[in-house]
Amino acid sequence: MVESFFVFVPIGSVLALIFAFYQAKKVLSFPQGSDLMIKISTAIREGANAYLRRQYTGVGLFFAFMFVVLGIMAFMGFLTPFVPFAFITGGFFSGLSGFIGMKIATAANARTAQASSESLNRGLRVAFSAGSVMGFTVIGLGLLDLSIWFFLLKYVFYAHLAGDGASQINAIASAMLTFGMGASSMALFARVGGGIFTKAADVGADLVGKVEAGIPEDDPRNPAVIADNVGDNVGDVAGMGADLYESYVGSIVATIALAVSAGYNFGGAAVPMMLAAVGTLASIIGSFFVRCGEKTDQRVLLGALRRGTYISSALIIIAAFPVIYFALDCAQYPERMGVYAAVISGLFAGVLIGFFTEYFTSDTYKPTQELSASSLTGAATIIIGGISLGMLSTLLPVVIVGVSVLVSFFASGGGVEFSRGLYGVGISAVGMLSTLGITLATDAYGPVADNAGGIAEMSRLPAEVRERTDALDSLGNTTAATGKGFAIGSAALTALALIVAYIDEIKLKAPDFLFDLSIVNPPVLIGLFMGTMLPFLFSAMTMRAVGRAAQKIVHEVRRQFREISGLMEGTADADYAACVDICTRGAQKEMIAPALMGIASPIVIGLILGVNGVAGMLAGATTSGFVLAIMMANAGGAWDNAKKYIESGVHGGKGSDPHKAAVVGDTVGDPFKDTSGPSINILIKLLSMVSIVFAGIILKFSIF
Amino acid sequence: MVESFFVFVPIGSVLALIFAFYQAKKVLSFPQGSDLMIKISTAIREGANAYLRRQYTGVGLFFAFMFVVLGIMAFMGFLTPFVPFAFITGGFFSGLSGFIGMKIATAANARTAQASSESLNRGLRVAFSAGSVMGFTVIGLGLLDLSIWFFLLKYVFYAHLAGDGASQINAIASAMLTFGMGASSMALFARVGGGIFTKAADVGADLVGKVEAGIPEDDPRNPAVIADNVGDNVGDVAGMGADLYESYVGSIVATIALAVSAGYNFGGAAVPMMLAAVGTLASIIGSFFVRCGEKTDQRVLLGALRRGTYISSALIIIAAFPVIYFALDCAQYPERMGVYAAVISGLFAGVLIGFFTEYFTSDTYKPTQELSASSLTGAATIIIGGISLGMLSTLLPVVIVGVSVLVSFFASGGGVEFSRGLYGVGISAVGMLSTLGITLATDAYGPVADNAGGIAEMSRLPAEVRERTDALDSLGNTTAATGKGFAIGSAALTALALIVAYIDEIKLKAPDFLFDLSIVNPPVLIGLFMGTMLPFLFSAMTMRAVGRAAQKIVHEVRRQFREISGLMEGTADADYAACVDICTRGAQKEMIAPALMGIASPIVIGLILGVNGVAGMLAGATTSGFVLAIMMANAGGAWDNAKKYIESGVHGGKGSDPHKAAVVGDTVGDPFKDTSGPSINILIKLLSMVSIVFAGIILKFSIF
Repeated sequence: MVESFFVFVPIGSVLALIFAFYQAKKVLSFPQGSDLMIKISTAIREGANAYLRRQYTGVGLFFAFMFVVLGIMAFMGFLTPFVPFAFITGGFFSGLSGFIGMKIATAANARTAQASSESLNRGLRVAFSAGSVMGFTVIGLGLLDLSIWFFLLKYVFYAHLAGDGASQINAIASAMLTFGMGASSMALFARVGGGIFTKAADVGADLVGKVEAGIPEDDPRNPAVIADNVGDNVGDVAGMGADLYESYVGSIVATIALAVSAGYNFGGAAVPMMLAAVGTLASIIGSFFVRCGEKTDQRVLLGALRRGTYISSALIIIAAFPVIYFALDCAQYPERMGVYAAVISGLFAGVLIGFFTEYFTSDTYKPTQELSASSLTGAATIIIGGISLGMLSTLLPVVIVGVSVLVSFFASGGGVEFSRGLYGVGISAVGMLSTLGITLATDAYGPVADNAGGIAEMSRLPAEVRERTDALDSLGNTTAATGKGFAIGSAALTALALIVAYIDEIKLKAPDFLFDLSIVNPPVLIGLFMGTMLPFLFSAMTMRAVGRAAQKIVHEVRRQFREISGLMEGTADADYAACVDICTRGAQKEMIAPALMGIASPIVIGLILGVNGVAGMLAGATTSGFVLAIMMANAGGAWDNAKKYIESGVHGGKGSDPHKAAVVGDTVGDPFKDTSGPSINILIKLLSMVSIVFAGIILKFSIF
Repeated sequence: MVESFFVFVPIGSVLALIFAFYQAKKVLSFPQGSDLMIKISTAIREGANAYLRRQYTGVGLFFAFMFVVLGIMAFMGFLTPFVPFAFITGGFFSGLSGFIGMKIATAANARTAQASSESLNRGLRVAFSAGSVMGFTVIGLGLLDLSIWFFLLKYVFYAHLAGDGASQINAIASAMLTFGMGASSMALFARVGGGIFTKAADVGADLVGKVEAGIPEDDPRNPAVIADNVGDNVGDVAGMGADLYESYVGSIVATIALAVSAGYNFGGAAVPMMLAAVGTLASIIGSFFVRCGEKTDQRVLLGALRRGTYISSALIIIAAFPVIYFALDCAQYPERMGVYAAVISGLFAGVLIGFFTEYFTSDTYKPTQELSASSLTGAATIIIGGISLGMLSTLLPVVIVGVSVLVSFFASGGGVEFSRGLYGVGISAVGMLSTLGITLATDAYGPVADNAGGIAEMSRLPAEVRERTDALDSLGNTTAATGKGFAIGSAALTALALIVAYIDEIKLKAPDFLFDLSIVNPPVLIGLFMGTMLPFLFSAMTMRAVGRAAQKIVHEVRRQFREISGLMEGTADADYAACVDICTRGAQKEMIAPALMGIASPIVIGLILGVNGVAGMLAGATTSGFVLAIMMANAGGAWDNAKKYIESGVHGGKGSDPHKAAVVGDTVGDPFKDTSGPSINILIKLLSMVSIVFAGIILKFSIF
């Protein structure tokens, strides 16, 4: 009976994809505005397409290479033969999510600007619909990938194992986990590459345009201005989509893997998949509640966006009850109903982390207002202030995740049966991500609004339109910050579930392996040290990459100002494509080293420290990555808004010395919040995924 | 027979104290120079004394309070009756070490400047001798405290347990561990308070003096200039002394505690104590080899200082062999000789971490040179560059500590008998710290030379003298940076030994306690998360404290410039004492919250998450604290030297735009390297110490 539940998963997938298609049609039905607006938007779209084309070519080569490597490993018996194919599909769907999201985002920017000239609500609707396409594409493709593999494995490849529920679902989960590795590899390339692109363009444009040439932001005379707008799309849209695609499928698959050791078998596997399917419907319903009036007040606008998320969450809380009740057969085993608390704790944790992220980064609250005041004594004090704000802001998310893990674990029966508690932790990650359709829509809305603001500026739309796009853009900054908090929180919970899935995978491969995961076991301890260090090393690599790529942009912009006569006077056009091209090349080249580091670390550390050491490394990387990512994201967000707060007229306003100091803070924050910080989310999941896929090799060849 | 070895410990202590006394006499025999120099030096000394008086009064109250609390706990049977007294002596000797070191440092600054007017070698000798007083006082008092308690416990209080070697040494170790908590509490107050004082004065002096009034550094017209010099003494001398005192006794006592479970009993306890005693002699001999010619070349000077350390290390390597051979009865158990490898690996790890710290922070190497070049594109790029340099520099120290732990563990027989391996890890910490007499001398030399440079500047000594003091001062920056690396490395190894000692303590108190230290056990995992976050929270608190205290100095300096007529013209004296007083009050007030956070965290977390959770927290705090401390110390050191490199004439030299950008980096680095970074070392040890002392309470009252 339980197995018939699974049919809801492809239904959920199709629903999500239909809704995404419907939203896309709606966005495209809006007019694009004036010729100038179309011209700018086209330039951005072409730049973004060019970037993604090149990125996917490069990444395609990597995937082909990995396909061969995994194929050889499968041939040698270290992996099941499905692994190379699962790896490819994971990467393909992750990339496709980002591609579709970006396509629609670049189509929506001019339309949002144009719609804002009619009314604020129209502008919001276009931008939010564009974000929805992204959100629902991610969950639709995620559920599609899950469905295809689940049904193929269950009814075709592993049909012979059907007699014994436990070993069939074990084999299925084990094979499916590997498409997570494909998804995270793709996500890492997308996030790191996109992050480098966007910040190289941003920093490069600012350093020469704003500082040296003294022209305003988003000025069409700046040759890097289009690249800057392209960056918002390839970094914040395509990168974010690939990232959360990966968290989404990762948390579901990891929880399926945990269902077996918890003794729940197919019923336990049905819960995360059903929650995801139910969440799809809840998100669709919630998204109809996102609308606003004509007041540009930020709190009102934020309320409009939040309403959708809250309604979706409430619907999931209602629907999760029967899902758990029937799937886990709670009529017979009433104690299993505790898993319901795990769903709720995950949902609450996501909302709370988002709230505190907003508290620390929005200029409507004290921390960012105080930060902007620290600009009065210069750049050094605002830098110190931002870093300490970021560090301080790690306390509550850690406590929230801690409480959520404890509640999920013990409510799900971890006190009686350890593995049931761990299953509960996995469920809480799924619970947090069950609203992904709408939370991601809210998040992807940000870059669309940002681009719309840029286009409004460049095409010199009337003041009232600009006021509206500015309001939408400001709102986008807040949703982007809370979206990052959500991405980090869900990544941490997913990574925890994956660590446990890793241990289960080892047990499956080598039932006699003697675990010693004690923190005083030297390989574990050293693994912890190494893992703790990895996010720092990774951040250093990505920040340095941004620096190098930005230098190239600086030289190019300077060259154009020097060589193109009439550029500063506005009589000649800048060569935007050259800057886009340099960013593309730079990002492609620079993303390789950090990505390879992420893939190679678990293998190298595993070969030396063994299985226990890998587990220690994963725990260290997850904890330190979580803390560091929050610190970087929040420090960056707060600097950005502290600058905007000053620009609103406080502490001397635009052009004053405090403003200059705040610009330094904002520039430092750029790679923090848009390159290194968000990439860490993916790093910690990728480390787990690689560890799981290479478990067989490590078991056989490691020194310890 | 083995027990007669212990008599070497008081002998080593007395030797160290005699040598410190002899060096102090030597320093005081040098002339103090002109009246102006005496006047300046007196002002610094009085300021430092005033600070320490107030600090010890405040800390005295805290100790009295803790004495009562621990007394009540002992009365209720949670602690042995020695604990309150051991706590007091640990704090007392730690404070005394800092006090004596600071006394001689403030007496040596003018003498070093004066001696430099005769020859470079004389200047070096005075400064190094002053540093030696500090180094040998720390080890002398450390061994004295150890000896007193060891002999009292063994032959008086626990004499009745003498029949059974294991239970006697267990009881002794358990009682002695608590004086570590006294020492770390004292150290935390000294480091945090001193760190806040020194950076508040430094930042305050720079922000108004250099930036607003446009007068040079160390200009006597700046009212905060004396406070700045006082800060070097109370932060870098008294704070550093208390810090390493604590690592020194902590590592020895922890290793003694581990000796029992390793089955070595008194022989195993003799090894760390003997190594410390032997190290004393080796350090004394090594310090006679520190001398130089008249070339101000940095590499030559550094070589002169290093020679002493290398010779001491070589002597210890030779002497450790017979110590281990006889103490562990290796004639009968040849496999125990593997412990020797642990000593060597610890020594090497210390030297290597020091070397890489130098590589990343000295302007004779590429990283800092590249960092200074990043100032060409402004303050933002040098900030990003410094942070990523700091993050990058964490890789090698983590690998070095990892290799050292692995080597120590397995060479000492951890593969066969787990607890023997852990004993080896403790021994490697003792090995690293066995050269403390001379390494600390090299380190405490720094602030003396720094002060001497300041006095030479303020009293306008001839150019050739200034050239020499500048050379000594530059050298001091390098030794301070490597000293910090050494302090962090030894703190990490000590903290690891203390974590194991904590677990042993629980086993002793509750033999039936069921440990589950697995990283997937939720309390451990959440403990890891909390522990990983604590150093970030702590750094945020200390950085914000510096900011607040610096603001007060800024207002005071501005007030003096405004109200004291003739100050800028040099016809009226500034009110130096007022600035010293404000720094003192500020530091006293601001050090309370971070220190209490350090003391309260293990208790609060323990009451919620239980023993396993505390162990997880300690592991998380140790790993993340180690990485964060290195990142902050190295970023700060590199910014400082990148600025100095530019001042040497590169990239436009002093006053150029790149120089201004580098000053921003340097100012950000100040609290990084002198307040937050070094305080983290103590935090991670204090957390372990508090956990050990409060183990009984946690066992009884915790929720999990």
